[in-house]
Order: sequence, then C-alpha cells, then structure tokens
Amino acid sequence: MSDTVKYLLDETRIPKTWYNIAADLPAPLAPPLHPGTKQPIGPDDLAPLFPMALIGQEVSTERDIEIPEPVREVYRQWRPAPLFRARRLEKALNTPAKIYYKYEGVSPAGSHKPNTAVPQAFYNKEAGVKRLSTETGAGQWGSSLAFAGALFDLEVEVFMVRVSYDQKPYRRALMETYGARCIPSPSGETNAGRTALEAKPDHMGSLGLAISEAVEVAAQRDDTKYALGSVLNHVLLHQTIVGQEAMAQLEMAGDYPDVIVGCTGGGSNFAGIVFPFLGEQLRGGKNVRIVAVEPAACPSLTRGQFAYDFGDTGHLTPLVKMHTLGSTFIPPGFHAGGLRYHGMAPMVSHIMDLGLMEAKAYHQSKCFEAGVQFARTEGILPAPEANHAVKGAIDEAIRCREEGKSETILFNLCGHGHFDMQAYMDYFAGKLQDLDYDEADLAMALAGLPTETAA
Amino acid sequence: MSDTVKYLLDETRIPKTWYNIAADLPAPLAPPLHPGTKQPIGPDDLAPLFPMALIGQEVSTERDIEIPEPVREVYRQWRPAPLFRARRLEKALNTPAKIYYKYEGVSPAGSHKPNTAVPQAFYNKEAGVKRLSTETGAGQWGSSLAFAGALFDLEVEVFMVRVSYDQKPYRRALMETYGARCIPSPSGETNAGRTALEAKPDHMGSLGLAISEAVEVAAQRDDTKYALGSVLNHVLLHQTIVGQEAMAQLEMAGDYPDVIVGCTGGGSNFAGIVFPFLGEQLRGGKNVRIVAVEPAACPSLTRGQFAYDFGDTGHLTPLVKMHTLGSTFIPPGFHAGGLRYHGMAPMVSHIMDLGLMEAKAYHQSKCFEAGVQFARTEGILPAPEANHAVKGAIDEAIRCREEGKSETILFNLCGHGHFDMQAYMDYFAGKLQDLDYDEADLAMALAGLPTETAA
Repeated sequence: MSDTVKYLLDETRIPKTWYNIAADLPAPLAPPLHPGTKQPIGPDDLAPLFPMALIGQEVSTERDIEIPEPVREVYRQWRPAPLFRARRLEKALNTPAKIYYKYEGVSPAGSHKPNTAVPQAFYNKEAGVKRLSTETGAGQWGSSLAFAGALFDLEVEVFMVRVSYDQKPYRRALMETYGARCIPSPSGETNAGRTALEAKPDHMGSLGLAISEAVEVAAQRDDTKYALGSVLNHVLLHQTIVGQEAMAQLEMAGDYPDVIVGCTGGGSNFAGIVFPFLGEQLRGGKNVRIVAVEPAACPSLTRGQFAYDFGDTGHLTPLVKMHTLGSTFIPPGFHAGGLRYHGMAPMVSHIMDLGLMEAKAYHQSKCFEAGVQFARTEGILPAPEANHAVKGAIDEAIRCREEGKSETILFNLCGHGHFDMQAYMDYFAGKLQDLDYDEADLAMALAGLPTETAA
Repeated sequence: MSDTVKYLLDETRIPKTWYNIAADLPAPLAPPLHPGTKQPIGPDDLAPLFPMALIGQEVSTERDIEIPEPVREVYRQWRPAPLFRARRLEKALNTPAKIYYKYEGVSPAGSHKPNTAVPQAFYNKEAGVKRLSTETGAGQWGSSLAFAGALFDLEVEVFMVRVSYDQKPYRRALMETYGARCIPSPSGETNAGRTALEAKPDHMGSLGLAISEAVEVAAQRDDTKYALGSVLNHVLLHQTIVGQEAMAQLEMAGDYPDVIVGCTGGGSNFAGIVFPFLGEQLRGGKNVRIVAVEPAACPSLTRGQFAYDFGDTGHLTPLVKMHTLGSTFIPPGFHAGGLRYHGMAPMVSHIMDLGLMEAKAYHQSKCFEAGVQFARTEGILPAPEANHAVKGAIDEAIRCREEGKSETILFNLCGHGHFDMQAYMDYFAGKLQDLDYDEADLAMALAGLPTETAA
C-alpha cells in the first residue's frame, strides 16, 4: 500500500485513566506561590476558581488518574482519534523517514481542546457550578468550552482576545451557536479590562489579559468558576489521552517514534502527545527526541526566562515558575492566536529545564507554506497553530533525507484550519507578514519579572 | 448508556462495490436525448466530456460495480464514516423515536462529495486527462474535486456560482489551498457566461449556468474533461457507499430504519443514503418510508414538472427526464447553495414518479433553527444543506412523539457548516430571510420546457 494509512482503535481502547507525568519526574515542580504573600499556596487558595476535583488533579502525584465514565461517554463521539501515516507527504518530500500524525481535528469543535473542556465541564457541573468563565485566543478553546457547556447545561462566558475576535468572527459565531456568550478582551466588564483600555484604547488584547478578565469575573461571582484551556497541570493531564492512544496505534503499526514534534502555546497539545512517551522513557523505556515548535513572534521557550511569573497580565493568578517573556509582554498579532501566550506550562517548562526536550521557533510564513504542502498531500487543512508542528515535522523529515536516516517522526495535528481561512487567503495574497516582537518590549517585560519569591 | 453512541466499522468494511439501483427498478429510466436531434444519445455523444469508464457506469444496469483499489485506498483516510445514534437530540425532543445519522463531514473536504470526486479524478487520470472543469454552488463540490485533483495530480478549474463566491470567500480559499483555480460564474471566459452577463451584468449565477460554463470549456479543449458533483447516474452510484455502510452499522445496532430522510439538491447525497435500502425493499425486503427534503425556494420535487429538460442554462447538455423548475429558473440567493439547482437527478425523479418516495419543502429559517438545536445537543455544526435533513428528521421525531411511536429514523448529515458561518451569523442577527422564488419566473421557466422530445 502506498497511500496514506489510518490506524484506528476500537472505542473500548479510549484510555480509562489520564497519565500524570508528575509521578515519574526526577525532580518535583516548583510550587505555585500566592500573588500577595509569595508563599506556596494550598488547595483552598484555588477554591474560588476551580472545583475541588480539579484542584486535586492539579497537585496530584498519582501516576494514573481515572477518567469518569460520563466523560468517556462524551469522548466516544470522536475518540479514539485517528493516527495517520503520512505516506503521500513522505513521497512528496522524498524522505526515508516515516511520518505519523495524530489528528485531533475530528472533535466537534475541531481541535484537541474538548479533551479537557469536557472533563472540566463535568467536574464543575458535579460541584453545582452554574457558569464558567474563560478566555480564548484563536477561539479553539472558547468554542470547545462552549461545546462542553452545552452538553452539561452550563452557561459559558468567553473573553476573546480582541485581535482574534476581529480576525475570526466565525469562531465567535460557532461559540454562539453552542450557546456561549463571547466578549472581546479587553472589555469594559472587568477592572483588568477597563485598566487596559484606559492605557491603550485600541488594545489588541493578549491571552494574559483575557485570563485576568475571566479570573476576575469568576472570583467575583459565587455561581461562576473559571476554566483554563492550557498551562495548568490538570489541563495537560487531560490531554494525555492523545499520546496514550498514539502509542497504542503505533504499536498496531509495529513502530515507535524516534522524534516527537509538537507546537507549543500554553503547552497542552504538546504535553498531550509527548508526556506518555516521555513517561516511558523516564521509567527506563526508549529515548525519544522531543522537539517543541513555537512562533518566533512569541518565543517563550527559546527566548524567555525560566522564572516565577504571573499567568495573567492583571496579576490575579498565582505565581508559577515557567519559561516566560514577562506578563506584560504583548506579542504581535500573528495568525496562530492559540500560541500568543507570554508563558509556558510550568510542567513543560520544568521538563525543558531538566534537559528532556529541545525547542525551536519559526516565523509564520514558513509554517503556512508547510501547511499548504500538507493540505495538498494529506488533504487535511491544518490550523495555523498546527502548521508549526507540520513545519517542524517536515524539517525533521528533510534532515532524515539529508542524513539518509529512516527515523520515525510523530507529530500532533492538533486542529483543522476551517475557521482560519483569512490567514490562508492572506498567505496566498502575499500579505502574510513575518511579524517580530518588539525587542524593547521584551526587555522591559523581562525586567519586570517579580523577584521577591520563595524560589 | 444514555449518551450519543457511535457505530464504527473496521476499514475492511468499506464497500468493495457501488450499488446500482438501475438493476432493481421495476421500470427503466427514460433515455437522455441529444440536445440537437432530440434522439436518444449513445456513449460516443458523451465522450468529449467524460472518460469511457464513467460513461459505462452511467448507462450500466449491472447491480454491483467494483470500486477500484486505489479509490478504496483514498476512501480509507476517512471511511467508513461514523453512524451516530443521536441520544442527546432524542432526549431534547422527548421523543420515543430512535434517531440515527450518518456523518459525512469527516472527509477532508467536509462533506459526502469526495466519495465521487475521488473516483472521478481516478478514472480521468487513468484516461490520460490533464485538467477537469466543474461548477460548484456552495463550494462543497468544488473543494472536493480540488482535493481529489491534488491527490491524482490533475488541474482543476471550478466555476463557482457568483452568489456563493461572494458569500463564501473561504470556500474559494480552500479550493485554492488544494491548488484549484476558482472562477465566479457567470464569467467572461465562456460564451454562456458572456451571454448571461450581457443580459444581466449583476447576474448572481445559478448552478445551471455554471454547468454550461464548465461543459463549454471541457468541450473546447482536448486535454480537459468535465466533472459533475450530482445529478448523473454515475455520481449517485458512487455515493451508495454511504447507505451500504449505514446498513452494516445499523445491523451492529440491531436496528433497521422505518423512515429515511435526506436533503435534495441535485440528489446525490439523498441517493447515497437511500438507494441501498430502497434496493433491499425492491428485492422483497422491508418497506421503508423515504422522505426527501428540499428548500421551499427551489422546490423541484414538490413544484417542478417531471419532463425532459436541459441540465444547464446554456442548453449544452443532453435533455434528461427529471423533476424540473425549467432550465431558465433562477432561485433566490438563499444560503444552502448546494440545493440551488433547477432540476433533480433523473434517477431520483424516476423513483419519485414510481411512487417509491415522498418529498417536502422547508424555508431556511426553520432549517437553521433545527441546525442550532442539533449543534447544541450533538455538537456537530451542520451545513445549511444538511440542516434541511436535520429539520426533516426532527419533524419525524416530533410526529413519533405525538403518535406515541418508537420508529427508527435515519438521516444523512452530509457535511459540516464550518464554511457557512455567515449564514449562522445572519440567523442569530435575525437577518435570515425566508426567500421565495418569483412565481412569474417559475411559470415562464416551466412554459419554456422543451416539448419536441421522443418521450
């Protein structure tokens, strides 16, 4: 067979547990600190924002955490997600490498995000919560939480980064179709939003600022909790079903990765595909090269500092130790809105610090070029975020060709680009600029990192 | 289990043959006639437009027609498509009916159309063709042929109905991402297009006119053939894998439909889900009620005449006997562009005439209302075309509730609406009008039907 091959698991093979890499790491995560006292926080400090079940997962060091059956029932609608061997792309690249991709765009919302939106909605519903507030960049997360909210009868309010709100009205329409309310951020509805608008009336927004707004409304209302689409341990945990399924599917193919490539914004899609394989390695299994690909315009892993910082611009969240560009850093308005975050998941940052992975940064035009090649060979149109992983995988395959090596490359195609066609139109019209961040802005943001911490 | 249930077949269960209902019909189709002589045409008359393999399928009365292995290899990327039991929708409707839907939006282009685009590209490539010309309404067909062309290294030129070209720039961007050239119709590139533009410079186009343009360029160039996305026998034939898979999946569920609902534009998605079940019935199997749902603004089955007519506006195609509103009929610019065709597939029309099915027509706002209810329960956002089938299925389920009957309802969710968000935005903004056709235009179009035919 010379065509693209699909590896599909029976739905009984949807994992029964999420994999918690905290159980296998050689050193523990630095603790999150209270934004006021700068002392390590406890579960009670997080209780206004999250239900206890999720707080328990956030701090757990148990290796395998059971997936509730009602969550698995919802997963069954699109899971196990397919794994493909990209034979047509391999042929186009004339590479001896084998390229596999896990495709998470098969979910109703079109990305990996429902993997965590569904359990978050479930646990909140169980805890008697009426409404969830959240932020979204490109809209993948907001539409996923809107979808999950519709299933579990929860109201959903989404603060959407202004630049994406303007670029992607159809993502907003999708959230509204699912019944959610979508608010451009910065908004006039919160102190954080009003402060930002006063400073800069044409503020294009950022994930860090939208987080501040969503956290603020959740903290103020008794019936509302907050949901985050990436960064936190429990969010990364929920995504590990991706890597677990991929491992079983590669076993069907009689293969195992030499290299895993993932794009990184907050880190959840990357963690989802990587952590189960990395866990194997940490428990004495095969070594795998792990490559994170981030946008050159928002390069937290390759240009940020590993330091305690706020998760949001308004400094309402705990301080977490992570690779960060500084919470005041405002990335330019490039198209991969899901990767426009100043920080990186503490767990991914920790693993980077432990030397267990590497990172590289690409400008967006090369990523779109890769995405178009992928669409013309594999037929699936990737999201701009996923194009970073596609580009990373193609470069690995080209390296294999040059070195004459038949390595096995695995990457996560975390979502489709059906709501990102303006970006493709701009690309074809030659209007897609390779935006760079402002060096002075970055220097100032890094200089402003909080220093009086316990770490 | 109370949640939505997925029935998935192993890829070895992709059908090995297409099902040709011509083998089981009690009376044969009326023959197509030459547009000049009005005499029955032979295969040679079609040779300028289609490769011989497809012409053979067009006129075949063999029951099972083998699917070439390279076509099945491509199908494997997304087939067998899932069948779902819509438990969440059933619950929301409080109906004793069981609602199943086959979901064809899992294909790379997002609809059932690649089921025929792939074999059409394959047979043309085998015949040495360099380029395919076609028309598209909503863009589902054009993007599917663009996808198939990319896989088989064929150039693709798509004449896109102007109203959709303007309403859906992102569908065009998808076609261009796959490497196709997209031209708004009427265009200045053909006699048919120029004539239409001279008569009406702001012509919004129609499928019938776009067909004329695509046929004209194929007839003029030796290296170019024409591909049609619906209406013709061989196109309907290719779609029968949908119904065959659904039958196997319902067998897994221990069920069989009492009612099948399909939306109808040219008839291919309807035929795909219906014909295999109807064939069972014709060979002595269980009787199934078959309900076609069409737009009230373009009601060929419910308001058209069953008569010989041209397939296109420019009168370049053969005359076929079908339910038609007249080839000069121009439907208003409603959102389900894929249903804006003046005629109906001759095979579907013939079956309607034989009394084997029924038809009903809906205005678009009720269909969007149904689509939103579907999205909020089942999570999948349907295309405007598919919303007609959703509305038809919901009405059947409500009837079952009122009659206290636990019938089994099957419908084909033929595509997702990710490229149709403007329509959803218009719906939420209260701007979606229930457009009606012009009665005088219809009367004139019907009066202009060709009369001097052999039939």
